[in-house]
Amino acid sequence: MQKLNEILSKIEKIDYSLMEKTQGRLDNLTKPLGSLGRLEELAKQIVGITQKENPAFKNKVIFTLASDHGIVEEGVSAYPKEVTAQMVYNFLRGGAGINVLARHVGAKVIVVDMGIAVDLDKHPGLIIKKVGYGTKNMTEGPAMSKEEAIASIEAGIEVFEDEYGKGIDIVGTGDMGIGNSTPSAAIASILTGKSVEEIAGRGTGLDDAGLSKKVAVIKKALKVNAPLATDGLDVLAKVGGFEIGGLTGVILAAVARRVPVVIDGFISTAAALIACTLKPDVKEYMIAAHCSKEKGHRLMLAHMGLRPLLDLDMRLGEGTAAALGMGIIEASVKILTEMATFQSAGVCERIEDGKL
Amino acid sequence: MQKLNEILSKIEKIDYSLMEKTQGRLDNLTKPLGSLGRLEELAKQIVGITQKENPAFKNKVIFTLASDHGIVEEGVSAYPKEVTAQMVYNFLRGGAGINVLARHVGAKVIVVDMGIAVDLDKHPGLIIKKVGYGTKNMTEGPAMSKEEAIASIEAGIEVFEDEYGKGIDIVGTGDMGIGNSTPSAAIASILTGKSVEEIAGRGTGLDDAGLSKKVAVIKKALKVNAPLATDGLDVLAKVGGFEIGGLTGVILAAVARRVPVVIDGFISTAAALIACTLKPDVKEYMIAAHCSKEKGHRLMLAHMGLRPLLDLDMRLGEGTAAALGMGIIEASVKILTEMATFQSAGVCERIEDGKL
Repeated sequence: MQKLNEILSKIEKIDYSLMEKTQGRLDNLTKPLGSLGRLEELAKQIVGITQKENPAFKNKVIFTLASDHGIVEEGVSAYPKEVTAQMVYNFLRGGAGINVLARHVGAKVIVVDMGIAVDLDKHPGLIIKKVGYGTKNMTEGPAMSKEEAIASIEAGIEVFEDEYGKGIDIVGTGDMGIGNSTPSAAIASILTGKSVEEIAGRGTGLDDAGLSKKVAVIKKALKVNAPLATDGLDVLAKVGGFEIGGLTGVILAAVARRVPVVIDGFISTAAALIACTLKPDVKEYMIAAHCSKEKGHRLMLAHMGLRPLLDLDMRLGEGTAAALGMGIIEASVKILTEMATFQSAGVCERIEDGKL
Repeated sequence: MQKLNEILSKIEKIDYSLMEKTQGRLDNLTKPLGSLGRLEELAKQIVGITQKENPAFKNKVIFTLASDHGIVEEGVSAYPKEVTAQMVYNFLRGGAGINVLARHVGAKVIVVDMGIAVDLDKHPGLIIKKVGYGTKNMTEGPAMSKEEAIASIEAGIEVFEDEYGKGIDIVGTGDMGIGNSTPSAAIASILTGKSVEEIAGRGTGLDDAGLSKKVAVIKKALKVNAPLATDGLDVLAKVGGFEIGGLTGVILAAVARRVPVVIDGFISTAAALIACTLKPDVKEYMIAAHCSKEKGHRLMLAHMGLRPLLDLDMRLGEGTAAALGMGIIEASVKILTEMATFQSAGVCERIEDGKL
């Protein structure tokens, strides 16, 4: 708990005065006022977060955290549990969606075993931070103990800190865990106050019967465990997952270092919701990469006041949307740092209103 | 007219059978079925367009066509007419928004003078295809003659064909022309059947009074010229612009070569509407990069059945959104060509419905 408390105590507000100054710079670039819309907002936000007037994304890092879930025995996923470990091997070989999209934007993928149900073969690219061999079935009691919840967050902090030494200018979150849209929906329902029906979606591809079962399973887990909506650690322990806790840790550690955080999809947003219960200021450091096709995602983002960058009907997770989002965010800082000003380019400024 | 007719006669439908085959390949990649949403649709469309089963975007080219507009004398723009030429110099020096975003995605920018009101200094990066020194004031008669309309389209075809010899795998459209949201709105109103009030927006930043004047100016131009909604060339001649005609030519030439076309914003979409009146099959080769903040853009895209990729409150033109869109489209083809299959990665496939 000490590591977590230390990180929480380091988190500050973003720098509003520097953002205002940055808008002045943006207004002086050779384009109609405000005509780059959200790119201008992003550039300002990145400056406010990093306190760097000319930020650059030399090191882009996506943390893809993997874990298993006891709830899978209730039949809530369209894929068997073995796929979690199989997909981690796929990540390590570079053949998964996240590998392709991270390469496309020049980002590095850090793969972490947060609690896969089996021991994986050693691999130089695999970080082992196992909190357990999968969570317990949350319809029968808490998914994990309070100590494990804290350990999972602190493992995420360690993973970030180890990589931070090598350089991180922007971070993306990613997940892998068969069944993990079920705990994520449980977390989201509690923390947003929305019904399970409004939040829970088809995950990797449930049919109507599967979705009904999933909703019933989540409701049972919430009834059995009665997590406290005001206590993120209690929610994580009772209805969460090790990779979700790990992502909460990555987010908090990044924010404490003033590193912008690109939130991927449904599972990452559940982790972001928990991070916000622990420290509300965190939300100003986050950029929602996209709105997932997974049902309640839009509501979760709206709850934190985050407007998604992309809306491409994606629902893969792994950090895939975070990768695409990073490409857009990097474009925004290049606008700020590379465009000519009206003065330097010798371009006339706008005609005053009423003088046309 | 011969060059235009030749191009029109070469345009074929996209390859639906190859698209179906590609969906089979996408379904076999290590991800839940359909979970990459629009990226999967884009990859299929690119295969259907190019008839290449493994497309790659080695050469990405954005054509930024510039011209002046007689209608500016009516006071319809927040910037003086001189800015068209000044911004072209800015493009040639690499300091504009399009230069920054094209570099970001690895695209080349081709800058063309289609009809700027002054003669520009020679520059190795500037292509001169002047159809005239700006259009005429369309409230007093046609913006250009029918011959000039054809010449502008054919100049766009030539510009594309000259560059095609050096390699083009995907093309983006871009524009520069102070006042050009006015002819674009006139074209859009006629070709979509929507009212001028629904289509015309604030362009580079008109206030309420400026917008009212712009609407009145467009209505007058439409009344004076009475363009025929069924005749794209008549519409282009009477209420169009040289860069708009040129972009129509670029689009048609690209489609005739089975090169995917990324449509930028409001002005490029007006050119796309004209291209579709000349050959409706063209729309299947186009990808709308974004929905502009400029008022009627969404209606224009909907009229052609195009769903924009991005929605970032941008309204700059120049090809800036096309550049960002290209980055996403390139990601989609990499998904198709670089991801592992279930078999190659040794990952279990989904559990059949009803067997969870």
